[in-house]
Amino acid sequence: MNNFKLYNPTKIIFGKGTIKDIAAEIPQNARILITYGGGSIKHNGVYDQVRKALADRRIGEFGGIEPNPTYETLMRCVHMIREEQFDYLLAVGGGSVIDGTKFIAAAVTYEGEPWELVQTYGAKIKQSLPFGSVLTLPASGSEMNNGAVITHKGLNAKLPFAHPSLFPRFSVLDPTVTYSLPAKQIANGVVDAFVHVTEQYLTYPVNAKLQDRFAESLLLTLIEEGPKALAEPENYDVRANLMWCATLALNGLLSAGVPQDWATHMIGHEMTALSGLDHARTLAVVLPAVMKIRAGEKKEKILQYAERVWGITDGDEQARIDAAIEKTRAFFESMKVPTRLCDYNLNEAIIPTLVEQLKAHNMIKLGEKRDITPDVAEAILKACL
Amino acid sequence: MNNFKLYNPTKIIFGKGTIKDIAAEIPQNARILITYGGGSIKHNGVYDQVRKALADRRIGEFGGIEPNPTYETLMRCVHMIREEQFDYLLAVGGGSVIDGTKFIAAAVTYEGEPWELVQTYGAKIKQSLPFGSVLTLPASGSEMNNGAVITHKGLNAKLPFAHPSLFPRFSVLDPTVTYSLPAKQIANGVVDAFVHVTEQYLTYPVNAKLQDRFAESLLLTLIEEGPKALAEPENYDVRANLMWCATLALNGLLSAGVPQDWATHMIGHEMTALSGLDHARTLAVVLPAVMKIRAGEKKEKILQYAERVWGITDGDEQARIDAAIEKTRAFFESMKVPTRLCDYNLNEAIIPTLVEQLKAHNMIKLGEKRDITPDVAEAILKACL
Repeated sequence: MNNFKLYNPTKIIFGKGTIKDIAAEIPQNARILITYGGGSIKHNGVYDQVRKALADRRIGEFGGIEPNPTYETLMRCVHMIREEQFDYLLAVGGGSVIDGTKFIAAAVTYEGEPWELVQTYGAKIKQSLPFGSVLTLPASGSEMNNGAVITHKGLNAKLPFAHPSLFPRFSVLDPTVTYSLPAKQIANGVVDAFVHVTEQYLTYPVNAKLQDRFAESLLLTLIEEGPKALAEPENYDVRANLMWCATLALNGLLSAGVPQDWATHMIGHEMTALSGLDHARTLAVVLPAVMKIRAGEKKEKILQYAERVWGITDGDEQARIDAAIEKTRAFFESMKVPTRLCDYNLNEAIIPTLVEQLKAHNMIKLGEKRDITPDVAEAILKACL
Repeated sequence: MNNFKLYNPTKIIFGKGTIKDIAAEIPQNARILITYGGGSIKHNGVYDQVRKALADRRIGEFGGIEPNPTYETLMRCVHMIREEQFDYLLAVGGGSVIDGTKFIAAAVTYEGEPWELVQTYGAKIKQSLPFGSVLTLPASGSEMNNGAVITHKGLNAKLPFAHPSLFPRFSVLDPTVTYSLPAKQIANGVVDAFVHVTEQYLTYPVNAKLQDRFAESLLLTLIEEGPKALAEPENYDVRANLMWCATLALNGLLSAGVPQDWATHMIGHEMTALSGLDHARTLAVVLPAVMKIRAGEKKEKILQYAERVWGITDGDEQARIDAAIEKTRAFFESMKVPTRLCDYNLNEAIIPTLVEQLKAHNMIKLGEKRDITPDVAEAILKACL
C-alpha cells in the first residue's frame, strides 16, 4: 500500500425528507445566496423545500449555472456577491452547480483576476466563502470533495482545481429528489460513478486489499442498481444505493494509498470539448478502449476485476480480459449509453484533432505510470471507433 | 436504507515514516502536552520520532495512562494542564491513550465536575482542547472517531461518551510501529476490529448494499491478514491492511444508514469488569453465542455472511448458520484467542452476577431491536460456556 493522506470534513445528511435539515446547518445570521442551474429545482419541489427550510433567513438567488459551468457566468455571480455582501452559499443542483459554486466561493475574496485560481489548479486560493449543497443529481461526487472543473469560454479551456477550503460544509442527499430526473441523466450518472471507480482501481496492484474491495463493492452495486434505476424510477432503495455510490466513488476513500489513472477522463474531456458529447458518454466510449490498449500494463487488475466483479474465471488470460471488456461495454449499453464513436456519428476524422488537443493541453503523459503518450492515446482513440 | 448523518473531519496521515508529518499539523505557537501509556513508546522508537519532529516546540509530557483509562489518572493530567497552560494535546499510543486524551480534552475547560461529562454520555461537553494522535496499536478505531470509554474506579463504572468536538484533528498511522507489538495485542486488535464490523452488519437487512459490501470487505481482509500478521510480524502490507481495517471498522462509514447491535460489546464489558478478561477476548466469547441465540432474528444477515464471507452455500439454513458460527469461532481460535468461558477458567457461576450487572447498568434492552432482555442475555451467556 502507498502512503496517503485522507481528509474530508463534509457532513453528509442522507435520506428522504432531509432538506429541512439545512436550517440547522447554516448559521442564523448568514446572508445566504442560493445558486442553481436551469430551473428544474423550481418544478420538482426542491426549491420549495429549500425556501421553506430557510423561511426566516436573508436570502438571495443566482440561477442559470450551466452544465460545464463557465467562468463568464460564474463571474456575474461573483460581482453580485461582492455588491450585496452574501457570506454563505447554498448550491442546489448537480455537479455543475456545486463545481460552479466552489469557483464562486474561492473567487469572491480573491483580489487578483479569479481565473488565476483555476489556471494554477487552486494553488493561489487562500480562503473561500463557506457553502453547503443540496444534491439533485448523483454523478460527479462534487458534493463530498474539494475539487471542481470550470470552463472558460473566452479561452476555450476546461480546467480542474482544488483546495482544502472547498469541501462543502454539508451536503444533503435525498434520493427522492432524483425520481424526476430524465433517464438519460440517471444513466450518465451511473456511468460517471462507474468510471470514477475504475480510474482508481484498474491500475496495478499495490496489495491494498480494502481499497480494492471497496472499489469492487461500488462496481457491483452500480451494476445491480443501475438498470433497476431505469426500470423502477421511484424505487427508493435503488436510488439511495446509487446516490451513495456516486458520492463514495470520488470522496478520497478509494484513492487513498493506491495509484490512479484518469486517462479515460482526460481523453474524454477533449471529446466533449470538440464534439459536445456528454461527459459520461465519452467515458463509456474511452474506458473499454483504454482497457483494450492497456491490457498488458493493467493485466493483473483487469483479471481481478474480471473475476470479482463479473465472475469470469474460464479461459486464458487474454480471453478473460476480453470478456471483462465486453461485460463492461454491455453494462454501459444496458444503461442505454452507447460505447463506440460511430454510435454518436463520429469517425476517425476527429482523431488527429483530439490528439492535437491533448498535446496543446499538455496531456502528453497520462495514466497511472505517466506512459500514455500521444501515440498511445491515438491507439486508444482508434479503439473507440 | 435508513436515513443517516456522516461527519468525520479527522485527517489521516498513513504510511511508513509519517510521524515526522505531525510538525506541520500542530500550530507553531501551541503548548503541546504529549500523553502516553506505560512507556513502550520509549523503547520502540516512536517517542524519539515524535520528539524529533517537535524538537523546537514547547512540550510537556504525561505518561501512565493505563488500559481501560481511569478518571482518577486522567484528572491528574487535567490539573497539570490547568496549571501549566497546555493548549494542544498529542496522544501517542493505542485506544486507551486516545480515549483518555479525549476525556482530558473535554474536561480541561469544563467548569463543573468533569465526571458529569461522561455520566451524561457527552451531552454536557461544550468544547474541547484540540488534539492529534500517533497510533501505536490498531484495534479500537478511536483514532478516527469522536467517542471514548472511561472507567471510574471509585464508582466502579465504565462508560462511553462522545461529542463532535472530540475527533482528533489528525491521526498518524505508521504500520511499522506495530512490528514490535506482542502477538497477543495484534490478535486482540484483529478480533476487536472484526466484532466492531459484525455489530454494524449482523443485524437485519435494510437493502444498504454498499454498507453490507464494505463490512464484508473488512471481514474478508481481517480473515486473510490476521493470521499473516502473527506469522510475519514485519510484513508491511499485512500490517498496513490491518491498521486501515481497524480504523475503518469504527469511523462511522459502516454504520451510516443501517441498524446496529452492540449487544456483544455490552455483555463483554461486564465480563471485563467482573473478571478482568481482555476486552477482545470477551468479544470472541460472546459473538458466537449471540449469533447462536439470535440466529432467528439475524437469519438473513447471517446467511449472507455465511455465503459472502465464508463461501458457505451447502446445506439447509440452520446448517449454514451453524457453519458460519463455527467458521467465526475457528478464525478467532486461529488467532490464538479462545472462544469459550471455560478456556479462561470461568464457569456458569459467574452468569447470575453478569446478569445482575447488566440490570444494574440499565443494559436491559440490548441489540438492534432492543429486545435482548436480561433473560435473553442469560441464554447468550450460557452459550458462552
